[in-house]
Amino acid sequence: MPDKDLYAIGWEKLKEIDGAAGERVIEALKDIAPDLARYTIEFPFGEIYSRPGLDLKSREIATVAALTALGNAVAQLKVHIHGALNVGCSRQEIVEIMIQMAVYAGFPSALNGIFAAKEVFAERDVNELD
Amino acid sequence: MPDKDLYAIGWEKLKEIDGAAGERVIEALKDIAPDLARYTIEFPFGEIYSRPGLDLKSREIATVAALTALGNAVAQLKVHIHGALNVGCSRQEIVEIMIQMAVYAGFPSALNGIFAAKEVFAERDVNELD
Amino acid sequence: MPDKDLYAIGWEKLKEIDGAAGERVIEALKDIAPDLARYTIEFPFGEIYSRPGLDLKSREIATVAALTALGNAVAQLKVHIHGALNVGCSRQEIVEIMIQMAVYAGFPSALNGIFAAKEVFAERDVNELD
Amino acid sequence: MPDKDLYAIGWEKLKEIDGAAGERVIEALKDIAPDLARYTIEFPFGEIYSRPGLDLKSREIATVAALTALGNAVAQLKVHIHGALNVGCSRQEIVEIMIQMAVYAGFPSALNGIFAAKEVFAERDVNELD
Amino acid sequence: MPDKDLYAIGWEKLKEIDGAAGERVIEALKDIAPDLARYTIEFPFGEIYSRPGLDLKSREIATVAALTALGNAVAQLKVHIHGALNVGCSRQEIVEIMIQMAVYAGFPSALNGIFAAKEVFAERDVNELD
Amino acid sequence: MPDKDLYAIGWEKLKEIDGAAGERVIEALKDIAPDLARYTIEFPFGEIYSRPGLDLKSREIATVAALTALGNAVAQLKVHIHGALNVGCSRQEIVEIMIQMAVYAGFPSALNGIFAAKEVFAERDVNELD
Repeated sequence: MPDKDLYAIGWEKLKEIDGAAGERVIEALKDIAPDLARYTIEFPFGEIYSRPGLDLKSREIATVAALTALGNAVAQLKVHIHGALNVGCSRQEIVEIMIQMAVYAGFPSALNGIFAAKEVFAERDVNELD
Repeated sequence: MPDKDLYAIGWEKLKEIDGAAGERVIEALKDIAPDLARYTIEFPFGEIYSRPGLDLKSREIATVAALTALGNAVAQLKVHIHGALNVGCSRQEIVEIMIQMAVYAGFPSALNGIFAAKEVFAERDVNELD
Repeated sequence: MPDKDLYAIGWEKLKEIDGAAGERVIEALKDIAPDLARYTIEFPFGEIYSRPGLDLKSREIATVAALTALGNAVAQLKVHIHGALNVGCSRQEIVEIMIQMAVYAGFPSALNGIFAAKEVFAERDVNELD
Repeated sequence: MPDKDLYAIGWEKLKEIDGAAGERVIEALKDIAPDLARYTIEFPFGEIYSRPGLDLKSREIATVAALTALGNAVAQLKVHIHGALNVGCSRQEIVEIMIQMAVYAGFPSALNGIFAAKEVFAERDVNELD
Repeated sequence: MPDKDLYAIGWEKLKEIDGAAGERVIEALKDIAPDLARYTIEFPFGEIYSRPGLDLKSREIATVAALTALGNAVAQLKVHIHGALNVGCSRQEIVEIMIQMAVYAGFPSALNGIFAAKEVFAERDVNELD
Repeated sequence: MPDKDLYAIGWEKLKEIDGAAGERVIEALKDIAPDLARYTIEFPFGEIYSRPGLDLKSREIATVAALTALGNAVAQLKVHIHGALNVGCSRQEIVEIMIQMAVYAGFPSALNGIFAAKEVFAERDVNELD
């Protein structure tokens, strides 16, 4: 019994932030764990990213920083580098976040963050995105 | 042979961001590891936080998010909640970052982030800071 | 605009599983982050623990194992040791989970898990709980 | 001077739980670290999984939950998804564990757990295993 | 059915390395998880620290570095700072390991490592140990 | 305004320790984050590895142990297995560190460390290095 409005709001927010990269994650969940797809749409996107109190660009800065520091979710980090760029971060700002993570999670996390960003930037060059 | 300018720049930046909480960390290092005190001033503050390309408020959002997600450095998290508030974050923005970390690092990390923020806000109430 | 039913279902489930320890967490959130209190009730308890497909005892085994392995959320681990005991785990089963985590997260995580269990068992002895 | 009985008990237990996937891990250790192969057989399997006090299915639930939450050992997670299925978990129960880990380790860990399960389920379909 | 020789060898090795701090850990396990006490003596100390191929001082350097980097087991880190000093590390070498961890696990881990060392050094001053 | 001497010292130290594997990391950073390349040379290598107080072999033992325990930076771990061998560790000593990490970070971390070492040893066999 999903809350239809929360789902609809979340789906729009997911497309706004993560774009095609986010839609592919949801698609990949459909056959094995459709409820996890629904929760991903409803909770992070329907609830959290839809909250006032912190702008979307700042929210994506927080997410990119956290995933870079944790260092164990490179696929999701790449989706959110796309997300950060989609909501107004510049490529240089992404690079700055990665460099800063050397201080809080060590140089290997920063390096792996940079290499993830490099791949995302190359994908976006092919697709003529900022 | 420390770089005197980098040290001076870093010391000013540390005081600007972390205030008295940051100064106490440096003081506590003096007798046991004075070079780690110097590195802390020179590298994170003299170099990283002094870089253009990402504003200080966004940098503190990244740091608070990362330390909340990692969940193993509560003392440093509290210093940087002070830091974030000192450079322009509102208390509500701090709370929003913590709530968002439930998505990326789980509810326990978010709860522990909130409880750290609660302590910092209480300290600041006593000292009549925002 | 919370979903009233989800909240009510979650609140009952939280009380069933975590008992007074869980209620205290929600209470502590009320003044600083009431929406995180609501999300905690609605998502983990209203949605996840209310799902069929895995019995509650198995769900608490999974949670206790994960929090012991992560090792950075001792307060929440203690709440869920209570929870596991409340839904049918024996004290010996809790101890077995902790010992097993030595294999997957190292002996320090196992030791810290055991010491958390020891505190919970002592609290329950005082309150004459299993 | 290995304890022959412990080794024999552990080897049988490893084959019972992890099957061919576990045997391949041991084989891969033989030339570079034969003692780590021996310890893996003797300690986790000869000692821990052979203990009474927690049934094998519950033990594999704990292991799958912990490895999903840690998020840095996908090869071992896949071996233990096989293991969980081999000792009586259903595929749906595995999926439920993964979804639940979104609460304790964040959505990226849950997603990566689900994608690991998807690969294991596909391997088992090819081999006509449950 | 413990292997008596392994237990005896491990117990001597534990006392050699960790001294009274290690014995207290074992004592604290006796009532709640005596088998974890036995495994701690037999596996890390009876097996691993008793192996040729890497000297004890190097082994303690590895352990102190790892626990500082993980950052979620401060009690065990303190036991092994004692251990490292007991088997030949100087206080300065301990401090150097902590500082170096800033590179691999971030400045907060290094700072927390240093503060743990500071407590251990103070305990040893009281007891007139190096 | 980099400190030229620190950069020059760091570059020599990086080549001494990590050799070609380290130079490739720096090269890969040049187009996207040249300042992170500079920091990597100046801080870890110009400052930390150039410090007296702990010999280079012990420093690499600490780094290999920490990266194996963290388990989320396999590329950097492989660079530092090369580094450890370049500054005097034997292959057997590397294997011993990995096995020991089973105690502090769990068997999966130890296994992944061993498999990283296996790849590095094979690369070195091709290049006729120790």
